[in-house]
Amino acid sequence: MGYNLLKGKRGIIFGALDENSIAWKTAERVHEEGGKFVLTNAPIAMRMGQINELAEKTGSEIIPADATDLADLENLVEKAQEILGGKLDFVLHSIGMSINVRKGRAYTDQKYDWTQKGTDVSAMSFHKVMQTLYQKDAMNEWGSIVALTYMAAQRVFPDYNDMADNKAYLESIGRSFGYFFGKDKKVRVNTISQSPTPTTAGQGVKGFDGFIAYAEKMSPLGNATALDCANYTVTLFSDLTKRVTMQNLFNDGGFSNVGVSNEVMATFMGDD
Amino acid sequence: MGYNLLKGKRGIIFGALDENSIAWKTAERVHEEGGKFVLTNAPIAMRMGQINELAEKTGSEIIPADATDLADLENLVEKAQEILGGKLDFVLHSIGMSINVRKGRAYTDQKYDWTQKGTDVSAMSFHKVMQTLYQKDAMNEWGSIVALTYMAAQRVFPDYNDMADNKAYLESIGRSFGYFFGKDKKVRVNTISQSPTPTTAGQGVKGFDGFIAYAEKMSPLGNATALDCANYTVTLFSDLTKRVTMQNLFNDGGFSNVGVSNEVMATFMGDD
Amino acid sequence: MGYNLLKGKRGIIFGALDENSIAWKTAERVHEEGGKFVLTNAPIAMRMGQINELAEKTGSEIIPADATDLADLENLVEKAQEILGGKLDFVLHSIGMSINVRKGRAYTDQKYDWTQKGTDVSAMSFHKVMQTLYQKDAMNEWGSIVALTYMAAQRVFPDYNDMADNKAYLESIGRSFGYFFGKDKKVRVNTISQSPTPTTAGQGVKGFDGFIAYAEKMSPLGNATALDCANYTVTLFSDLTKRVTMQNLFNDGGFSNVGVSNEVMATFMGDD
Amino acid sequence: MGYNLLKGKRGIIFGALDENSIAWKTAERVHEEGGKFVLTNAPIAMRMGQINELAEKTGSEIIPADATDLADLENLVEKAQEILGGKLDFVLHSIGMSINVRKGRAYTDQKYDWTQKGTDVSAMSFHKVMQTLYQKDAMNEWGSIVALTYMAAQRVFPDYNDMADNKAYLESIGRSFGYFFGKDKKVRVNTISQSPTPTTAGQGVKGFDGFIAYAEKMSPLGNATALDCANYTVTLFSDLTKRVTMQNLFNDGGFSNVGVSNEVMATFMGDD
Repeated sequence: MGYNLLKGKRGIIFGALDENSIAWKTAERVHEEGGKFVLTNAPIAMRMGQINELAEKTGSEIIPADATDLADLENLVEKAQEILGGKLDFVLHSIGMSINVRKGRAYTDQKYDWTQKGTDVSAMSFHKVMQTLYQKDAMNEWGSIVALTYMAAQRVFPDYNDMADNKAYLESIGRSFGYFFGKDKKVRVNTISQSPTPTTAGQGVKGFDGFIAYAEKMSPLGNATALDCANYTVTLFSDLTKRVTMQNLFNDGGFSNVGVSNEVMATFMGDD
Repeated sequence: MGYNLLKGKRGIIFGALDENSIAWKTAERVHEEGGKFVLTNAPIAMRMGQINELAEKTGSEIIPADATDLADLENLVEKAQEILGGKLDFVLHSIGMSINVRKGRAYTDQKYDWTQKGTDVSAMSFHKVMQTLYQKDAMNEWGSIVALTYMAAQRVFPDYNDMADNKAYLESIGRSFGYFFGKDKKVRVNTISQSPTPTTAGQGVKGFDGFIAYAEKMSPLGNATALDCANYTVTLFSDLTKRVTMQNLFNDGGFSNVGVSNEVMATFMGDD
Repeated sequence: MGYNLLKGKRGIIFGALDENSIAWKTAERVHEEGGKFVLTNAPIAMRMGQINELAEKTGSEIIPADATDLADLENLVEKAQEILGGKLDFVLHSIGMSINVRKGRAYTDQKYDWTQKGTDVSAMSFHKVMQTLYQKDAMNEWGSIVALTYMAAQRVFPDYNDMADNKAYLESIGRSFGYFFGKDKKVRVNTISQSPTPTTAGQGVKGFDGFIAYAEKMSPLGNATALDCANYTVTLFSDLTKRVTMQNLFNDGGFSNVGVSNEVMATFMGDD
Repeated sequence: MGYNLLKGKRGIIFGALDENSIAWKTAERVHEEGGKFVLTNAPIAMRMGQINELAEKTGSEIIPADATDLADLENLVEKAQEILGGKLDFVLHSIGMSINVRKGRAYTDQKYDWTQKGTDVSAMSFHKVMQTLYQKDAMNEWGSIVALTYMAAQRVFPDYNDMADNKAYLESIGRSFGYFFGKDKKVRVNTISQSPTPTTAGQGVKGFDGFIAYAEKMSPLGNATALDCANYTVTLFSDLTKRVTMQNLFNDGGFSNVGVSNEVMATFMGDD
């Protein structure tokens, strides 16, 4: 499968950890569509992951970068342009982490150093990536930047903890920077709000399997998979969505606009 | 241009009046992407339009139908499947009309027969189209239905008059029917909320040129054109957006998420 | 209880059927807060209801009116001002009805004459009420108009059927007319989106009791009662909310911003 | 003026700097409504302000506290209960600050130490305040917590800079903590999104006067004043809004739901 939608386009993909990652699937699909890219991830994440396999498969180079570190980001953006032979057309930001979640701290009992670290990694990193791209004038006109987010930014899912606030912050950064990147450089910026997805990162969250089953029953078309997200991202990187910007786009089988489904009510009433 | 995104897909396109129509551009782009379709419009609109030219250019047949008339819609859906050789994969609803606007009645001085007629043509027609498709089981699984709307459904643009309420009603119908079409038939339903577009229909509205200039200055990427909308619709008809449903998607250069732009403030302050 | 919040204010209250009605509770609370009003309802609803008892209790007169009939509305607005001795300060619209729901027609199998009738009664009546008030210049400056709605306007609750679309239409009318009523007469217009409430009307809906239990478990503060809604409406009629207009305000114990509660997940997983 | 709406209620008011402050007006109005409270502000802000005058006028004590410092907050919450003689019923958070704005750094050229400091002061402080109240079990059932915010959290106002993202983060914290405070303690949490208001803090922002004039022309009822905000806050602290929680409530004369007003279009077209 492949339509040549991204032929001749160059970019950077953040956050491919292993084959369950949305960023991994996106890299595969972008490759199939003719796009070239550099892969990047935090050095620590790379040690845990299998990113070399993906690089080989897609003919990509890897440049490690801590997305909270401006020097790393500057190096990444410069090297990526050198390797790919020109300015960039697309960037995927798929980064998120909450120490409070990992360590099992309740939302009402935050350790604020951890909260602040989570904000920096999960949200402010998106600003840092864009500021680096903007200041280095590294994006081609009509380029496209996408970050992944989750509906907890709009509604409370109790176990999502401080990641909810990080995602709200991230989405706001998308809108705010999207204004300036649009006006000044004709670059679009959007966020995709994805169904809960059984990535390796997600699997650590308490009750995640049950929640995925719940979301599946709430969503008229079922949960969007990592591949669905990769495909949607491809359309946003393509030339077919040039005037779509500053949007938060739900890829969730309809969950976001369902109050309650008949299936969930049946389970709730003990009728199933 | 063409990526074969819609190869083998069949559909119906409502509302192509002349070459300025969004539906016209969409028909051209769907054709370029390999999709086959039947064109339809109200008999009276067809007399005014140049739809034969479009039909010839895209190798399509025309089936006149009043979208408020169930018998016409049943005939259309049956004939379309006969002509195209199978169930349908996509439908575009691009229909809207307000007699109050045409006749210059203020929003605070509605003639309610006209208001009701506008609601029927502009919004309830979308339900009638979908109910006909649903009851005749005329859509393939993972098919895609799109209707065009405008942001006046969320915020007041005074001259848009009762069309604002019609669009809010239309968008709700998209969500409501999207639930059932998703659950029962695996079909997605979305609305695209498009920049003000200089179509032949739009040009009749008072102050429309000024408003387009205003929207252009508010939108970081400028107003989305009819071609932009056609391209976006193509992505929604394609297999790359299978789990996107029940959404209202802004294609507007960012207008919807701008509070005020520097350009508009400069004009407002007399600084430009 | 009573703070004199509405002392000296005059108004009209639509839709008090019996003591379970939100409009009934609102009338009682407005009376306690010192407001005077005329009660009105459709002639047919009045035969079923006990509105005379409410009128006696609150020292109010009753003027029957079909809210879809302009002549009835003109008579109502004129008589109300005569009886109350001046222009009006507040109006409550609490009217809704779907024949498709009553007759058990599925959303995907609408009888459109019924759908259109429901739209007229449930939504266009709000426009008709406001147009009558506006054209007769019957509202005092800083007056307040409130209509009741439900979150099905934003998200699908399958059994709510075509009332969802009617409520979306109603909310849009609130915004649209709110613009003109604000600019031209300094009158505010808002809608309250209320928890599911066990009114006599609501009790006819299939599975309503189960749904109320579900909403109770989803809402951190539990479902808002009819009395809660009456109290909230009192604040919107008071002078303390003069610049709040064109808003849709959720009175729902938090339901609208909960993705899923721990209680609902526990029931879903069979853990409770 | 005064309705005894808050008779017997106790609380804390953050952020009264001088008589232009929204928190100052709120303190005056809460006092008129019979509420008792402790005033607090950052030590540095207190040196600049005239808070002693307000304390005298309202019979309140002042407890200095840096809202980013947990020890200060713990001391504040303990002392306030001692002084007022029991648990608290209301809290107002009116705190915000961006060093990037003050120092004239563009949104695309952030100094991230400053950005992080702004996030801590403007948003995370709200979490810290609530976590302290929650852990000390310092709120009575049906108590009410309000924070002030601005619509830049939803739409871009270019000069608002990184405060936009801080406000989005703040509003998310309101929702997230509102869930737990509601479930566990029956306390409601809301944010008020206020018109641009000519406070002493606001006056430092570039082009603020022009922007206030623009907002005035966009808002059908004109900009909400500091007094309007104080009055609205009083309703949210009262017993009349017990089931309103986790909401972001616009107090803005209608601005948030206007696409464009006739007045702004006239200025834009040079017709005024």
